[in-house]
Amino acid sequence: MENYISTKLYNTLTKRLEPLLFSKEEKIGLYVCGPTVYSDPHIGHARSAVVFDLLVRYLRYLNYKVCYVRNITDVGHLTANQNENEEDKIIRSAKKEQILPMEVVQKYTLRYHDALEKLAVIPADIEPRASAHIPEQIAWIEKLIKKNYAYVVNGSVYFRSQKYRQKYANVTFFKQKIEKLTESEEKKIKNREKESPLDFALWKLAPPQHLMRWDSPWGVGFPGWHTECAVMASHYLGIPFYFHGGGHDLCFPHHECEIAQMHSHSNIAPVKHWIHHGLVLVNGVKISKSLANAVSLHNIFRGNHSTLRQAYNPMVVRYLILQSHYRKGMQFSNQALQIAKKGYEKLVNGWFYLLQNKPTGIINNTVPSTAIDRLLQITNSFSTILNSDLHTPKLFVAMFNLISNMRKMEKKNISIINLPVQIWEKIANNYIRFFQDILGFRIPKTPKMLNIALSWYQQAKKNKENSTIDRIRSLLQKENIHIEDRIKSDHSWRYSIT
Amino acid sequence: MENYISTKLYNTLTKRLEPLLFSKEEKIGLYVCGPTVYSDPHIGHARSAVVFDLLVRYLRYLNYKVCYVRNITDVGHLTANQNENEEDKIIRSAKKEQILPMEVVQKYTLRYHDALEKLAVIPADIEPRASAHIPEQIAWIEKLIKKNYAYVVNGSVYFRSQKYRQKYANVTFFKQKIEKLTESEEKKIKNREKESPLDFALWKLAPPQHLMRWDSPWGVGFPGWHTECAVMASHYLGIPFYFHGGGHDLCFPHHECEIAQMHSHSNIAPVKHWIHHGLVLVNGVKISKSLANAVSLHNIFRGNHSTLRQAYNPMVVRYLILQSHYRKGMQFSNQALQIAKKGYEKLVNGWFYLLQNKPTGIINNTVPSTAIDRLLQITNSFSTILNSDLHTPKLFVAMFNLISNMRKMEKKNISIINLPVQIWEKIANNYIRFFQDILGFRIPKTPKMLNIALSWYQQAKKNKENSTIDRIRSLLQKENIHIEDRIKSDHSWRYSIT
Repeated sequence: MENYISTKLYNTLTKRLEPLLFSKEEKIGLYVCGPTVYSDPHIGHARSAVVFDLLVRYLRYLNYKVCYVRNITDVGHLTANQNENEEDKIIRSAKKEQILPMEVVQKYTLRYHDALEKLAVIPADIEPRASAHIPEQIAWIEKLIKKNYAYVVNGSVYFRSQKYRQKYANVTFFKQKIEKLTESEEKKIKNREKESPLDFALWKLAPPQHLMRWDSPWGVGFPGWHTECAVMASHYLGIPFYFHGGGHDLCFPHHECEIAQMHSHSNIAPVKHWIHHGLVLVNGVKISKSLANAVSLHNIFRGNHSTLRQAYNPMVVRYLILQSHYRKGMQFSNQALQIAKKGYEKLVNGWFYLLQNKPTGIINNTVPSTAIDRLLQITNSFSTILNSDLHTPKLFVAMFNLISNMRKMEKKNISIINLPVQIWEKIANNYIRFFQDILGFRIPKTPKMLNIALSWYQQAKKNKENSTIDRIRSLLQKENIHIEDRIKSDHSWRYSIT
Repeated sequence: MENYISTKLYNTLTKRLEPLLFSKEEKIGLYVCGPTVYSDPHIGHARSAVVFDLLVRYLRYLNYKVCYVRNITDVGHLTANQNENEEDKIIRSAKKEQILPMEVVQKYTLRYHDALEKLAVIPADIEPRASAHIPEQIAWIEKLIKKNYAYVVNGSVYFRSQKYRQKYANVTFFKQKIEKLTESEEKKIKNREKESPLDFALWKLAPPQHLMRWDSPWGVGFPGWHTECAVMASHYLGIPFYFHGGGHDLCFPHHECEIAQMHSHSNIAPVKHWIHHGLVLVNGVKISKSLANAVSLHNIFRGNHSTLRQAYNPMVVRYLILQSHYRKGMQFSNQALQIAKKGYEKLVNGWFYLLQNKPTGIINNTVPSTAIDRLLQITNSFSTILNSDLHTPKLFVAMFNLISNMRKMEKKNISIINLPVQIWEKIANNYIRFFQDILGFRIPKTPKMLNIALSWYQQAKKNKENSTIDRIRSLLQKENIHIEDRIKSDHSWRYSIT
């Protein structure tokens, strides 16, 4: 790859930008904490999915092999931590909707998948469910008990945090936060079963009304949320693995508790690189179920929400997400969507502009070499920008810059149609690769867009430009649009009905 | 419901048509054996999915509550039964594709879901995976051992078929077939572990190279295919449950072995009603992986197969499947698809014809009461026909009959536009309900169709026909097409990009 500059990403554990230290031969593990499937997916879920989709797409574009594991939490995620009134989120929804817990899981897993598909998020390679790994979790806890890192009280098992902290004191995200927690929790400690307020449940005794329960060496119960991710990540990726990701709010206690378990279990620092994305602010306020501001994705796509002034194409939502740097907070509002809509349309128009101005080989007006150099310079900057901690907002600026440079040239009567073909191809291919393969945008399938693309196709057919024909075909195929050549000059669209 | 005639369905166990004996208050369980997700879904999978989709849609239309469970087999389905060289299908694919078994499962589960979505199949309510129910299967087998219906040999557990047959001799599908099997197997018996050739594995000792394995009281192993379905069905639906379905090829040994286990386990006849659909013949030959004639669904939708002369809309495939009665063999070929395409288009045109000829209230030419009676009679026959063992081919004939009657009237200058509005509504609503809600067809989303529908919409808007406007909106909403009213007389389509 030309102009290849090694990618650097911010590691939340070491708090600095770090180069990726793996080869293209090995398979790189990425574990991301997926949703608890008890209600409709919202903009917060979309951000996590799109951010890690970008990472996976980019690593694959750089020819790295990735095994992307993102779990489905279907049991054990309780409504309130450290609280005796806690309730399993799935079970609460099941009671509310008067269906079985596994019907809740199926319903919202499908909605989550559907929303991600609309957002053009590539599916994870493995999508393990917590309830599907009970034997693995029991074996995991048994080993921790054996190593004295866990203890059994009244049918529940707790992790002995103090022992872990004595041995591996420096391997934490938020040392201060823990100390703080210790003080405050010490006073209001409710759970008398724990040796220390820092301890957390690996396995919980199931109360009689608990609908999802399994036999264990400690009685009938269910796994703790922190156990699930630690076990599924280790099971599929092995310890150590390279990347672990999630929202910034998961750093503590969830990821802290994962590190503690995996480290104690294996004696190895379990994860090389931690990636956390920033949170979403809906109209300036943090998403919260109780605040009812968690706008569902399907409602955004349909414009069904009091704060939205119209329905938004999923690609606009994808743009909105990538418009913020992944580590920053992200604003969600009707106004932010309006700005994102303009940005996305600008990128699409750039794509169309490039395709419509493919050089014919007949040069009417030579493009000055300074202009060519400028276009190539911007083109080459795309990967440099992403290599620096996946800086998508800067990438958008560069792409807009490329477009505005081309349009400025046109004003001086030097259209890119006059570029040497191989220069045009370099610019166009790179633009399309970043737009479609790496940023993951789809072309809008409106009748207008289809007609534009069809007319290009017909023209290319007429002129027998096979490479252009192939390009248009392959670009559209990714959108599930297939061109059928029937008889000469009678081409037609066929959509897959989806 | 007018003209309500109780539904009768064929029960494969009793070999006769039986009325449905449940109330609208109780939740009816339906368990269907789903795919083993080791390769692309083919026309055989589509038939099973569409047939049971029709059943569920019809039961729900009749206001019955259904809990539809269809499993995903992700472990334990071996390439050859009763053979020492047998290999797990998922593991074989994992080795071939050089990915983890669970990556195979994810890949083909997603392809299966995608194909079903294209075929407008409503998702199952619960979709349990075999590997996700290891503790339940171990507990199940332990109980069978305790009741002396199973025995352990060298780390594997076998079901003691003779004991079951002595106790419950009459509860089998294919008594003769078993006797035959006994004779022939007796001679070539290879598995020396079994007490009798009729016995089958509930749990198999895992050879060292087996990638999917779990601890059990009998050693490290994996569950047998027959165990999985029996356990998952019982777990989610409880014994007894009402419906169990699958392809006719599953009757023996799979369903036979399920009945045996569930009956022995619970002492109760486990399933009230067994439904089996006929098999698919591809160009006259039974589907077989070794014959490589299992045309994948995505290849049908894209026209990527040597025997197909074009790509086919998934709705044409759905029509093809419903064109055969579900218990009969079904022919799949390019020619059959061509015929199905014509049939589907005829149904769509009937739908358009009805909508385009909504009475205005101004009657120019009175429709004779005999003609009205004839139209109502045909309309009422739709549910009568489905009530008789879901006879979709006869339903298509009736729907065509309705359309041709309307067209014949037109030739005599008596268009249905002259019908009393409530008669038209009865006919149109019933047609649309059967076409869209029960048979589950989607409207093709071609630009031509969209333009037709848009022009109706505009007309209805102009004439302020609010009920027509609502109907068009709601019909199209089901297809994920939303009409946006921007400014007066400027309506436009918005597709969800899927």
